Amino acid sequence: MYAMYYVAIGSLAALAFAACMFFRVKKEPGGSKEMLGISSAVQKGANAYLRRQYKGVGIFFAVVFVILMGMAICGFMSFFTPFAFLTGGFFSGLSGFIGMRTATMANCRTAQGASESLNKGLRVAFSAGSVMGFTVVGLGLFDLTVWYFILNMAFGALPEGERIAQITANMLTFGMGASSMALFARVGGGIFTKAADVGADLVGKVEAGIPEDDPRNPAVIADNVGDNVGDVAGMGADLYESYVGSIVSTSALAVAAGYGVKGVAVPMMLAALGVIASIAGTFFVNTKEDATQKNLLTALRTGTYISAVLVVLAAFFAIRILLPGHMGVYAAILSGLAAGVAIGAITEYYTSDSYPPTRKLAASSETGGATVIISGLSLGMMSTVAPVIIVGISVLVSYFCAGGKGDFNAGLYGVGVSAVGMLSTLGITLATDAYGPVADNAGGIAEMTHMPGDVRRKTDALDSLGNTTAATGKGFAIGSAALTALALIASYIDKVRQIAPGLDLDLSITNPPVLIGLFIGGMLPFLFASLTMEAVGEAAQSIVVEVRRQFKEIAGLMEGKAEPDYSACVDMCTKSAQRLMVAPAMVAVAVPVAVGLLLGPQGVAGLLAGNTVTGFVLAVMMSNAGGAWDNAKKYIEGGAYGGKGSPQHKAAVIGDTVGDPFKDTSGPSINILIKLTSMVSIVFAGLVVAVHLL
Amino acid sequence: MYAMYYVAIGSLAALAFAACMFFRVKKEPGGSKEMLGISSAVQKGANAYLRRQYKGVGIFFAVVFVILMGMAICGFMSFFTPFAFLTGGFFSGLSGFIGMRTATMANCRTAQGASESLNKGLRVAFSAGSVMGFTVVGLGLFDLTVWYFILNMAFGALPEGERIAQITANMLTFGMGASSMALFARVGGGIFTKAADVGADLVGKVEAGIPEDDPRNPAVIADNVGDNVGDVAGMGADLYESYVGSIVSTSALAVAAGYGVKGVAVPMMLAALGVIASIAGTFFVNTKEDATQKNLLTALRTGTYISAVLVVLAAFFAIRILLPGHMGVYAAILSGLAAGVAIGAITEYYTSDSYPPTRKLAASSETGGATVIISGLSLGMMSTVAPVIIVGISVLVSYFCAGGKGDFNAGLYGVGVSAVGMLSTLGITLATDAYGPVADNAGGIAEMTHMPGDVRRKTDALDSLGNTTAATGKGFAIGSAALTALALIASYIDKVRQIAPGLDLDLSITNPPVLIGLFIGGMLPFLFASLTMEAVGEAAQSIVVEVRRQFKEIAGLMEGKAEPDYSACVDMCTKSAQRLMVAPAMVAVAVPVAVGLLLGPQGVAGLLAGNTVTGFVLAVMMSNAGGAWDNAKKYIEGGAYGGKGSPQHKAAVIGDTVGDPFKDTSGPSINILIKLTSMVSIVFAGLVVAVHLL
Repeated sequence: MYAMYYVAIGSLAALAFAACMFFRVKKEPGGSKEMLGISSAVQKGANAYLRRQYKGVGIFFAVVFVILMGMAICGFMSFFTPFAFLTGGFFSGLSGFIGMRTATMANCRTAQGASESLNKGLRVAFSAGSVMGFTVVGLGLFDLTVWYFILNMAFGALPEGERIAQITANMLTFGMGASSMALFARVGGGIFTKAADVGADLVGKVEAGIPEDDPRNPAVIADNVGDNVGDVAGMGADLYESYVGSIVSTSALAVAAGYGVKGVAVPMMLAALGVIASIAGTFFVNTKEDATQKNLLTALRTGTYISAVLVVLAAFFAIRILLPGHMGVYAAILSGLAAGVAIGAITEYYTSDSYPPTRKLAASSETGGATVIISGLSLGMMSTVAPVIIVGISVLVSYFCAGGKGDFNAGLYGVGVSAVGMLSTLGITLATDAYGPVADNAGGIAEMTHMPGDVRRKTDALDSLGNTTAATGKGFAIGSAALTALALIASYIDKVRQIAPGLDLDLSITNPPVLIGLFIGGMLPFLFASLTMEAVGEAAQSIVVEVRRQFKEIAGLMEGKAEPDYSACVDMCTKSAQRLMVAPAMVAVAVPVAVGLLLGPQGVAGLLAGNTVTGFVLAVMMSNAGGAWDNAKKYIEGGAYGGKGSPQHKAAVIGDTVGDPFKDTSGPSINILIKLTSMVSIVFAGLVVAVHLL
Repeated sequence: MYAMYYVAIGSLAALAFAACMFFRVKKEPGGSKEMLGISSAVQKGANAYLRRQYKGVGIFFAVVFVILMGMAICGFMSFFTPFAFLTGGFFSGLSGFIGMRTATMANCRTAQGASESLNKGLRVAFSAGSVMGFTVVGLGLFDLTVWYFILNMAFGALPEGERIAQITANMLTFGMGASSMALFARVGGGIFTKAADVGADLVGKVEAGIPEDDPRNPAVIADNVGDNVGDVAGMGADLYESYVGSIVSTSALAVAAGYGVKGVAVPMMLAALGVIASIAGTFFVNTKEDATQKNLLTALRTGTYISAVLVVLAAFFAIRILLPGHMGVYAAILSGLAAGVAIGAITEYYTSDSYPPTRKLAASSETGGATVIISGLSLGMMSTVAPVIIVGISVLVSYFCAGGKGDFNAGLYGVGVSAVGMLSTLGITLATDAYGPVADNAGGIAEMTHMPGDVRRKTDALDSLGNTTAATGKGFAIGSAALTALALIASYIDKVRQIAPGLDLDLSITNPPVLIGLFIGGMLPFLFASLTMEAVGEAAQSIVVEVRRQFKEIAGLMEGKAEPDYSACVDMCTKSAQRLMVAPAMVAVAVPVAVGLLLGPQGVAGLLAGNTVTGFVLAVMMSNAGGAWDNAKKYIEGGAYGGKGSPQHKAAVIGDTVGDPFKDTSGPSINILIKLTSMVSIVFAGLVVAVHLL
């Protein structure tokens, strides 16, 4: 299948570009000794955390590997699956690790760059983000390539049609490893980052009255570590999973739709084209020295839009060549890309303080913390309407354009292709997203090392923009997760039909197992959000106690004469995150299996649908409410409604604190939840069907 | 159909009992002139509000009536439907009105009774609640009886089987009128009561530092009015609708299941038996004078449980006689009743301060308002797990017991019967629920008229108990709403199949219209909650401004030398509630019709399923979080964590304020949303199918 060569080329191009960017960042000057010291403290903390996390996750992977091997021996799955599970997890984790390493290296360099010029700061931070973006894409495609060649050899004796079917069916199970790793990274990192952030804010800002990122705050290093392990490593692992998941599930659906090899080649080709387009796009991210925040945003946007346009053009010819009679598939690609852009724009509208919703939220601080919470929740809920309609239109368009006159499987293939279309330019969209935490950290370093106010203003400009790109990035992540999850549901049903062709699979919503599956699936994101928020609360509580203790017991700390014990806070966050991420992860893995064993494959289908629907809505709501609270607080800090220290500001801080776990722990973790439950269901389909047929 | 005579008898018994209770309350002494004065001010305010509400709603009913008549002329529905719509709305509104009238009459009498003895106070408040409970049940059954006889005459020429089918199909459309009225009552009343409450608390308690229910607070009368129009009239209209809806939809499903006349008689008979059992149960609500709060709760519980046991016994013989070969239907009744009791118990566990969840929530006040919010949301989300599982089990049990070996329609009939089973003892469960606001008002009157502290302590004991019964009542309301909605979805699909027997109705979750319907349905409760919360916020804002103005402009007010202008606040709440209830109501009515016209009947089915699932989960979450916040605050006021006035208490007040619209506006309104969308879909099915077939 010659398309695999394109994928291999795309993978190598992405990895090479990521390496270039890495060395470009590395050769930048790291600033003063003090700056390098802080940067290395953050890096050490992040390393320690990830080491510990990988150890914990290693146990999980070992246990699941043994279970999968057992199931393979019993004949419920192929022997490739357990190994595919391991490599998916490994590469997903590696993506996060490389991204984190680069980000922790880039933070002081960005601060140093900003001290030279705004454009320089932007270039360094964006280059660091690019390393992350292209590593994710490159490793994802690399994993696909390697397994393709292995499976192609293993099934070499089969005729082409059957061989492709076997290959795609086996590749589909890769995703569970990537999803599991992503879940741990997102949840563990999310708990870490928000426990440190909330803990630092509650005692430092609110109780002791010292500014954010003040070096006297014992939790300040942990806070910076958290940005890197949560927002960078977690986000990377998450999107790695969406990216690979959408490609393999679409390939599998191509076989069911009868498009054969050429249909399988479309998502691969699209991914490869996307890499090239994304690399091209990065060269347009530039700004003038006297740039306003708007100019900065324009700079990042130009890059993203140029990449999208290039993909649109290239995809046209790709489809013409591969599937000449099916230009509807091209429409599916367009609808996916358009939906991604539209969801990003909607997210920005609801979360940026340039638009009415966040301004109105800021105004609600006039009547206290309670009204800030009510207005923020209301804003978040309202912001779910447009994304749901956009996803709905995108699904309809891609289904009917690709499916022609009611070809069911071809329609589902179209939905998969639209997800791949949305994610094709992931290299650059993820770069603009991962850039945010780097700028945030740079600001922290500038503050801690008492760099001139001018530098801090520049890093603040970069950071504030990062909030916007993070919000659009999250919109993008959740949109692609929903489409990917739909493709995975289709793959699941397809898989069940393959395993048991004679099974009468009634998927009507009035069929009780489906209906009850819908209910349980609809509840699952709420349970998951509850566990993750509770975890943040519990972990933050312990940080609060520790920071208070240090303030009290370390003499001369508040006067700046003694150093706080930063590593104690980092340690505590690490331990809490490890301990508290277990329960939500178990829920995500165990519930689909349990529902399958109790209600059969129809129950699982209902579960996945309910979970995807409610998960999508809840994740959008939580991410957007959190983003809006954050920016409303920043808006007030900018001088509105009494500015910093006013009662209005205090009210806004309450909103921001509630928003932290919303937008950085629970909300984005739900993205992974909806994909992981589908993946687990696919992997365990053999067992579930066998038990069901007993 | 002789079962109708039982229904007629049940109706008359309920109404007669309600009248007895009314006169019993009326002949109680109303207390001092001052007390009567406040009571009459509250009554005047409530009257003014309801008059205005009925005027606004009248316009809505007139418009919809004209539309329905137009559709009847075009042949999309029968000519009975528009009139059935009107009577449903009329009786639902009348139930609420009578309940409110009794409650506003009983408040001063309860305060007076409490000054004599605790048992006396309990008897008066509970009798007032009973008026409400039995009026709802009696009028509901009365409406059914009258229409049955009219339709029986109209279709008198048909053979019995066809006649019954026509009657039940036409009766099914009653519900839309009741649902619409319920929605306006719940949303409008909910906005009124919470705007007044939040407004009174924000300025009075937080800013001016005067106690709750202090007569110097200009919003205090509006607050009391709100309890009556929201918690009493709104709740009554809501459950009227569930009650009637579950009975008629089950009757319609009986015909589809082929059970014929006897199957139709089962829900009717069950309702009639429930009335008798409920009346018997009320005689066991009694307590000793030295009763603790636990004794009080036991008194109320004894009544409810005795009624349930009586229904269980009587239903056994009823099913044996009516459907001797189908004792599985009896299991469905049991599962519905058991689910109702279990959901009530779970709700109490999560919202009462006797159990760990609410205590833990109170403890989170130690670290400020933000952690109170996070913990409360987390608690609410966690509390959805058990109810979902309970409903799931109940649906499975009732479906499979009633359906036997895979009889689809019989299974759905079983689900309907379980809803009727859950609601059969509504007379007494609603009485224990409606008792709460009466006790709450009595406490307010005791405070405002400076009655001895001992009286206030007694009314507080009654009121605090009311919070628990209100929470269990809400759990009950949402549980029955979910089951009723499921029965209505089944009726909808049945109706579509009747209208267009040849239509290929693919209700698989993978069918794009169904899937997109699921997404839109899943989003709808979020949109609805957003609109209603925003409405409370906006209305409260205007009350805050008005109360502040009065404190500033009325000389001598704070010293108690001048009277505030109570009616200005009542007026403002009334106007705001009327204006702001329009948007959410339109959403509930317009969305199912729009989705039907765009996506066809399959899209509507998906919409209803998604809406029921997410609506159920979100309503449980909001109601329970709100209840827990309220009780955590009360727990702190009882002396824990620094008690009243401490920083912990201030943090808990933020939670309580956020919880107000959660538990009294948005949460319970969602119950009605999920039923109303089903009802609207059923009524407009003819039009939607016709457009779809074009």
